[in-house]
Amino acid sequence: MIQKVEDSKTPSPLFPNSKRIYIKGKSHDIEVPMREISLSDTNLPNGATEKNEPIRVYDTSGQWGDNSFHRNVQKGLPKLRSEWILRREDVETIEGRDVKPVDNGFLSERHDQRTRERLQELPDFDRSQISVLRAKSATPVTQLHYARNGIITPEMEFVAIRENMKLQTIAEALSTSPSELSNSLNHQHDGHSFGACIPKEITPEFVRDEVARGRAIIPANINHPELEPMAIGRNFLVKINANIGNSAVASSIEEEVEKMRWATKWGTDTLMDLSTGKNIHRTREWILRNCPVPVGTVPIYQALEKVGGKPEELTWDIFRDTLIEQAEQGVDYFTIHAGVLLRYVPMTRNRMTGIVSRGGSIMAKWCLAHHQENFLYDKWDEICDIMAAYDVSFSIGDGLRPGSIADANDEAQFAELKTQGELTTRAWDKGVQVMNEGPGHVPMHMIKENMDKQLDWCKEAPFYTLGPLTTDIAPGYDHITSGIGAAMIGWYGCAMLCYVTPKEHLGLPDRQDVREGVITYKLAAHAADLAKGHPGAQYRDNALSKARFEFRWEDQFNLSLDPEKAKEFHDQTLPQDNAKTAHFCSMCGPHFCSMKITEDVRRFADENGLNDEHEAITAGMAQKAKEFIDAGAEIYSDSSSKK
Amino acid sequence: MIQKVEDSKTPSPLFPNSKRIYIKGKSHDIEVPMREISLSDTNLPNGATEKNEPIRVYDTSGQWGDNSFHRNVQKGLPKLRSEWILRREDVETIEGRDVKPVDNGFLSERHDQRTRERLQELPDFDRSQISVLRAKSATPVTQLHYARNGIITPEMEFVAIRENMKLQTIAEALSTSPSELSNSLNHQHDGHSFGACIPKEITPEFVRDEVARGRAIIPANINHPELEPMAIGRNFLVKINANIGNSAVASSIEEEVEKMRWATKWGTDTLMDLSTGKNIHRTREWILRNCPVPVGTVPIYQALEKVGGKPEELTWDIFRDTLIEQAEQGVDYFTIHAGVLLRYVPMTRNRMTGIVSRGGSIMAKWCLAHHQENFLYDKWDEICDIMAAYDVSFSIGDGLRPGSIADANDEAQFAELKTQGELTTRAWDKGVQVMNEGPGHVPMHMIKENMDKQLDWCKEAPFYTLGPLTTDIAPGYDHITSGIGAAMIGWYGCAMLCYVTPKEHLGLPDRQDVREGVITYKLAAHAADLAKGHPGAQYRDNALSKARFEFRWEDQFNLSLDPEKAKEFHDQTLPQDNAKTAHFCSMCGPHFCSMKITEDVRRFADENGLNDEHEAITAGMAQKAKEFIDAGAEIYSDSSSKK
Repeated sequence: MIQKVEDSKTPSPLFPNSKRIYIKGKSHDIEVPMREISLSDTNLPNGATEKNEPIRVYDTSGQWGDNSFHRNVQKGLPKLRSEWILRREDVETIEGRDVKPVDNGFLSERHDQRTRERLQELPDFDRSQISVLRAKSATPVTQLHYARNGIITPEMEFVAIRENMKLQTIAEALSTSPSELSNSLNHQHDGHSFGACIPKEITPEFVRDEVARGRAIIPANINHPELEPMAIGRNFLVKINANIGNSAVASSIEEEVEKMRWATKWGTDTLMDLSTGKNIHRTREWILRNCPVPVGTVPIYQALEKVGGKPEELTWDIFRDTLIEQAEQGVDYFTIHAGVLLRYVPMTRNRMTGIVSRGGSIMAKWCLAHHQENFLYDKWDEICDIMAAYDVSFSIGDGLRPGSIADANDEAQFAELKTQGELTTRAWDKGVQVMNEGPGHVPMHMIKENMDKQLDWCKEAPFYTLGPLTTDIAPGYDHITSGIGAAMIGWYGCAMLCYVTPKEHLGLPDRQDVREGVITYKLAAHAADLAKGHPGAQYRDNALSKARFEFRWEDQFNLSLDPEKAKEFHDQTLPQDNAKTAHFCSMCGPHFCSMKITEDVRRFADENGLNDEHEAITAGMAQKAKEFIDAGAEIYSDSSSKK
Repeated sequence: MIQKVEDSKTPSPLFPNSKRIYIKGKSHDIEVPMREISLSDTNLPNGATEKNEPIRVYDTSGQWGDNSFHRNVQKGLPKLRSEWILRREDVETIEGRDVKPVDNGFLSERHDQRTRERLQELPDFDRSQISVLRAKSATPVTQLHYARNGIITPEMEFVAIRENMKLQTIAEALSTSPSELSNSLNHQHDGHSFGACIPKEITPEFVRDEVARGRAIIPANINHPELEPMAIGRNFLVKINANIGNSAVASSIEEEVEKMRWATKWGTDTLMDLSTGKNIHRTREWILRNCPVPVGTVPIYQALEKVGGKPEELTWDIFRDTLIEQAEQGVDYFTIHAGVLLRYVPMTRNRMTGIVSRGGSIMAKWCLAHHQENFLYDKWDEICDIMAAYDVSFSIGDGLRPGSIADANDEAQFAELKTQGELTTRAWDKGVQVMNEGPGHVPMHMIKENMDKQLDWCKEAPFYTLGPLTTDIAPGYDHITSGIGAAMIGWYGCAMLCYVTPKEHLGLPDRQDVREGVITYKLAAHAADLAKGHPGAQYRDNALSKARFEFRWEDQFNLSLDPEKAKEFHDQTLPQDNAKTAHFCSMCGPHFCSMKITEDVRRFADENGLNDEHEAITAGMAQKAKEFIDAGAEIYSDSSSKK
């Protein structure tokens, strides 16, 4: 079985013509990863060539994207942040909670072992070299706490460098500083940011300030030192999340670990492990020890497993124990549905689709069964204290989100959002980082109201939405119905977009569905970054468009979000190698290519010094027309030559 | 070879549980097709069942979607509109232009025949029963002309009934009239329509008025009597267009005809035939005689073939002859790039991606080569006279549309758009129907400016855009990057969205790409209809969401835009037949289903009369809690039973 895991290294996590490079910090001893894509030269019409600088892009693949990495899941990723954490001298090593058979869904050790032998599943991850950390005192060990105290942590500097991708690249190429450079970029449209304020250069101090205000979070559990810090906030690049998880019906641990590597290869910024059923603890351990991005969970799912799937049997003690279990293991953020209050449940009675959130329906059932207030709400302060001791961030759940267009923006949904706002403030008072979850199914004209109310009621805490889906009628294509809503709400100020795969509402996503979902959300997030005017966004579009216009096919593939698919699609029509250097493509064929005609127009304009309208009209072109016809005729007589 | 065409009948154009039905007109002897989807009953918690009325949806498949149709491509579709046209007594049968070998890209009859024998291609369509029609006099025979004269044509009544889909359905079910009904719909959100005014009921008079104002067109060449009339305008359902066409590199006639049936099956509202190379005329004939939706072309493509692919050799005479050739054949709208003026060409000199429209680059090259104004602009009035004599609509091309984010909304683009406005007014003066083409590549925050300027400068003539693509960095996923922009501009008022397939920028779309492109654009158009508040839009979302919530799996599949894919995706995880009736799905498994929990909550609330917040809090639920736990425990002990 272990062999099987090693086999699953392939396919390579590396992209063509790419290498992982590292930028050193200035204040801290940190190395911030980026993926550098090298480009080929431009062939100029006069026969000369022009060099194209390599392009650096944000990289979420972790060391799995580094050629020199051992790639052994049993060793896990290096503990990048261990020293940063220990140097703060506010944590201590503790014994930690013992892992119990029930954590993995078994009645006893023996039950666990026998089932595992039968199913030939993975052994436990070897934790002999790992210690559990916790805050020494009641003082929070959160990035929010440090930020409020004026401390720029290594995590913050890491984020600042990471978000400055484009400026770093150009500055190095031109030997100038990012801030000097940022005003002089051509072909850059100013976005419209709906009140967000993205600076021309993201500095470590800016990151600190955003975290201190609660406008951004850096999810980073002190027990997940493997992660590469990232920020979620509307003045940063829009982030995306991918969900993975086993289920009662399908999947295995091994598949889950590989899904994590696969999702981060394509670019997911965080990962939620939504496992249910057996081996939840063990699955999560393998994921955390190998995962370079923050991992989130919905702890009530595991708690429910511990009570045999009966919501009414959930108790605070079981839930609290589960929180500690997961915090000690290193989960970076928890979805907690504390806003589903008893009095809101009947508001869903006349909905088209009732309560569609699993967490929401579990808590609704608990509330009705006990006729008591949601215990997650009642115990909020205690929950905050646990989160603060490990720096687990809140992702306050939206258990009453609409499950259909008909239910969008209704009373139940907004009642809960208001309570999310109250919980946000209370968590901040305890020094805990917070983001808020949002819908769901919302038609386009009702999306902005969600963002506006969230900013107002939750006081600018980052918003993290599922889509939203802009119509209900396209099951099988809900990555797209939701990608539309996601791009729009990202533009309006949403900080993170939870992906939806083509299998949404229908089944469990497979590898290709995960890839399709992640890429769809990367492009939606990027479209939002462009619209917001993030200074690091349009650079990549320009590089790709330039490559496209110059018929640098390989560069066009390599600069895209999914180089493999781009190349595969191209090769379906024109598989020959020489088609990759051809100055035409299959859409129009050699004699009919608009790009080629434009090349001619441009050359002609250059040769004749026609750089503006006035010149064009007055330059006596009639006389030169004959020359052009002759030249043009020659160009078209042999389309494969480059003259 | 003919055999091969008949074989290509399969796969069936029919959808599961669907039949094509017809609604009779009131003023005219017309039968308006719709697809009726029958639904299964709802199983109520008390064991009773509740009937679900069948749902009618807009149907573009023509008689190919009717079980009783002969399905013989050699006979073609019935000539639905012939009598309507002749009854107006303003057209005459003419000899018509002889088809020449050059129309199909051959030097002589012999060259044509020998090549066809060698390639085993299709014979000519049998036109012995078809006559060519043209206006008797200089008076236009256009829908615009009739509308201005207060005439409600059969085409207009057809459109009115077709656009009232939902209201027709409910009204019949409830035996009330559409207009009485329209105010009483539950679960209907009012959209935000940016100044459009969609009435609660689309009447024939409303259609006439919109056409008369130039705000809508009904593309319907008098020589394409096979088409089922449809309207393009912002106060109607948002329409989509699919492009097909052979090319120098791949494809055959037979494939093109089947592509037409395939694209209309999935829902394209119009079709553009962008063929180049050999057999253009013959391909188009097979398409037109079998096509139930309007067909558009870019006549300059065929004209260019006639001059051996050399733009500088194009002449007005060749172009004029091509217009007549296509108008006599039955093409319903022409893209004409008359707005690419000589003085605008140098404005593209410093663009990231120059001129990316094929038509635009052809005309730019012609202008520069001759140092003369674009002959399409100079001959505009003569072109209008030809269009008016057959009721061919204009789709005024945007030859200078941006080909990259960097070039969006630039001087060249908007200079041309202003000229499109001038050309629109001139065409209207000649009684010709007009829409305007738009971009292209535009980031989200710059989309609305396109719509606003078009409405202003082109005086509310329908806008017809290609996407727009909201980022350049996702080749292989450009149906999605553009679906985002398409949904948004549809909301803002764009009347028709030209689809983009996953192969855009990379290669020629195959069948699955066409399907993916059409469905993506159908969902984008529908999302726009919802956001605009079109009264016929949300009905289908509600029906699907109700089916989803009630675990009527087959109904959920059948109500979706792509029932085959929805079912296929579901079956990948749960292939068993009984999973189609199960009250859970593969995402959560039987013990963890939020929909199931909500069912319990709803039943509990019903049984206890808890229909509002106040009751919920005060009803003494604590006492009843135990009953609920008992009932709940029982429900969860056997998840496959329905009690």
